[in-house]
Amino acid sequence: MQFSHRLDRVETSAIRELFKLLGQPGIISFAGGFPDSAMFDVQGIKQASEQILNDSPGSALQYGATEGYPALKEELALFMQSKGIKDMEASGLIVTTGSQQALDLVAKTMLDEGDTALVEAPTFLATIQCFRLYGPKVLGVPIDEHGVRVDLLEGMIQTHRPKLIYLVPTFGNPSGAMLSLERRLKVLELAVKYETVVVEDDPYGDLYFEGEPAPSMLSLSHLVPGSRSWLVYCGSLSKVLSPGLRIGWMVAPQALLQRATMCKQFSDAHTSTFAQATAAQYLKSGRMPKTLEHVRQVYAERALAMGEALTEHFGESLAFNQPKGGLFFWAKLTGANGGLTDGSEFAKMAIKQGVAFVPGAPFFADQADHSTLRLSFATSGTDLIKQGIERLAAAYFKK
Amino acid sequence: MQFSHRLDRVETSAIRELFKLLGQPGIISFAGGFPDSAMFDVQGIKQASEQILNDSPGSALQYGATEGYPALKEELALFMQSKGIKDMEASGLIVTTGSQQALDLVAKTMLDEGDTALVEAPTFLATIQCFRLYGPKVLGVPIDEHGVRVDLLEGMIQTHRPKLIYLVPTFGNPSGAMLSLERRLKVLELAVKYETVVVEDDPYGDLYFEGEPAPSMLSLSHLVPGSRSWLVYCGSLSKVLSPGLRIGWMVAPQALLQRATMCKQFSDAHTSTFAQATAAQYLKSGRMPKTLEHVRQVYAERALAMGEALTEHFGESLAFNQPKGGLFFWAKLTGANGGLTDGSEFAKMAIKQGVAFVPGAPFFADQADHSTLRLSFATSGTDLIKQGIERLAAAYFKK
Repeated sequence: MQFSHRLDRVETSAIRELFKLLGQPGIISFAGGFPDSAMFDVQGIKQASEQILNDSPGSALQYGATEGYPALKEELALFMQSKGIKDMEASGLIVTTGSQQALDLVAKTMLDEGDTALVEAPTFLATIQCFRLYGPKVLGVPIDEHGVRVDLLEGMIQTHRPKLIYLVPTFGNPSGAMLSLERRLKVLELAVKYETVVVEDDPYGDLYFEGEPAPSMLSLSHLVPGSRSWLVYCGSLSKVLSPGLRIGWMVAPQALLQRATMCKQFSDAHTSTFAQATAAQYLKSGRMPKTLEHVRQVYAERALAMGEALTEHFGESLAFNQPKGGLFFWAKLTGANGGLTDGSEFAKMAIKQGVAFVPGAPFFADQADHSTLRLSFATSGTDLIKQGIERLAAAYFKK
Repeated sequence: MQFSHRLDRVETSAIRELFKLLGQPGIISFAGGFPDSAMFDVQGIKQASEQILNDSPGSALQYGATEGYPALKEELALFMQSKGIKDMEASGLIVTTGSQQALDLVAKTMLDEGDTALVEAPTFLATIQCFRLYGPKVLGVPIDEHGVRVDLLEGMIQTHRPKLIYLVPTFGNPSGAMLSLERRLKVLELAVKYETVVVEDDPYGDLYFEGEPAPSMLSLSHLVPGSRSWLVYCGSLSKVLSPGLRIGWMVAPQALLQRATMCKQFSDAHTSTFAQATAAQYLKSGRMPKTLEHVRQVYAERALAMGEALTEHFGESLAFNQPKGGLFFWAKLTGANGGLTDGSEFAKMAIKQGVAFVPGAPFFADQADHSTLRLSFATSGTDLIKQGIERLAAAYFKK
């Protein structure tokens, strides 16, 4: 059987091999990219699904509009308004099957062979592969603790004339970094100056640990005239409510939104109306603010515990910034005192000690930094986190 | 904003324009391709979703395997076994977000620019557009009341060397035709002889009105040595249980299944686990056979009523075969007594009389027959069907 050439462009083995080992009993895992299922508001979701099957089973179980279930679009518009997008209307967004599909639709709508897409180095692994299936070159732009290096970004735009720039500006996966306000505005200016689409992927923005949430680039776009015409925003309920509902959404200029809708029609017709109606009813029930408060508090505690344990056990052998939100620590093996600097080797040693994490190299589109690693603090309680980091240190220092 | 060249290849306006008119009050619609929501087993689905949120909320609301929710894969394997695929195992299928996604994944996995895909003329509209987005030429193979003309198919295979052949062999949309047993075997032989993938799309196979169900090509593949290696089968719960769940599945050779899974990973990560777990519990509950019996009986009555009314009011002006299952009549304006033969013109006249259907031309990948039309009998009761056909005749004969 002869398959499409596009399959030659993707590489999925790196992390898969590691995940096979995760099934072993007794493993403490910092490897996943998912939220803690113990925090799902099961009662609230159950009430919501019961209510929609009582009130509107016909529409909740029938085919629906490709753009999304009208009641959910209304609720998501309100949700976005509450996050500072004052002029958000239901017609300005479409519902997607998780925000992964939003990325797929942006790529399908925009990217051809010969095009270039810029992403952060490192960035969300599935974005790199998703884009590559449509043929473009995917290049990484260096980041620091304040997010993408806008000074380098402009030069890369001039050199490569990218079709789009993909960023996870708030608590990025895997970097955990927060793009500074100044840089957010600069990215928007560059989008206008070079007429380049910017995709803001924002699954973690609601998971801030203290103070006020960071303003999304979408919410800042009114400060940079013309930038809204080049901005795509991808939202998701996966990290804050439930990934299993597969509810994401995309805010974009109408010309792009219409074409993405057309592509979606032939990808999956529409997102599950059953899941959409349930999510709409959940948002309508008013439980979301309390749910968000709860997950923020729990993840904040876990992030604190992990940071303290890493500092205590690794000292100068590991460099990292304490995340201010999201689900991840991004760390770098410094090689202090002649220590190991290969993240993949370290991951294999760690598994033998009963603890798992993901090496950082696969998160780079090109020029991987092999000394990096990603640790998720989302799915283990603080005691387990401490125990896991102890095991990690035992593996590293061969105690 | 500059979009991908692949968007130039699709055409969606033909039916969309008509659908805009459907919202008018008092329209009797034979236009839709969806089942009657009044027949959804709401109670059964509600019980299933309640039970999974009681028993396994953690897995039903969490991220899941791209291949599908294990319990659903097991239930679908049993369902396929009950449909004559004795050796069906859960590992031989993946769950898709409706069978539309199965088609998208087959195309993404197999089709490049320069390739050719053969489809029936006419065929499912969304398949033509879905395939075209990946670049191949899509060509129609003529059909008659016994399905695709295998005598012509072999010549077209020799001439065009297609990457794949897409068929809806049982109560095809829009043709309603049933591929004969002899031709099913011949298609399988051609697949082996020319090493060409055959995609069997089977959303309507369970909707037979009398006697025994037709054997799927998948269930016949053991009779044609080697054919299983070239056969892809797409199933769906949309027409028999609920489209809103978006549960489809794909049975295929492992090499294709693995690649389709990889493509799915970057399309939507996985199908809603909430919907999958609900569907699994529903199938496990044992209610499906009775649900199938019910929908078969109701659709059979409606098909009978529509056939009688068409014969009574149109006589020799309209040629059609009485469907033995599925949701559709496929009819041809004969032009008897100098009558109109343009389906699109007729559709516009019909809307003015308060009745809607879909003209047949858009269902052809090439060389459209403009005298054809598709009438769905699924969503109107028998009285409304009679009234609708009366209106249709009034529009046609300008009474």
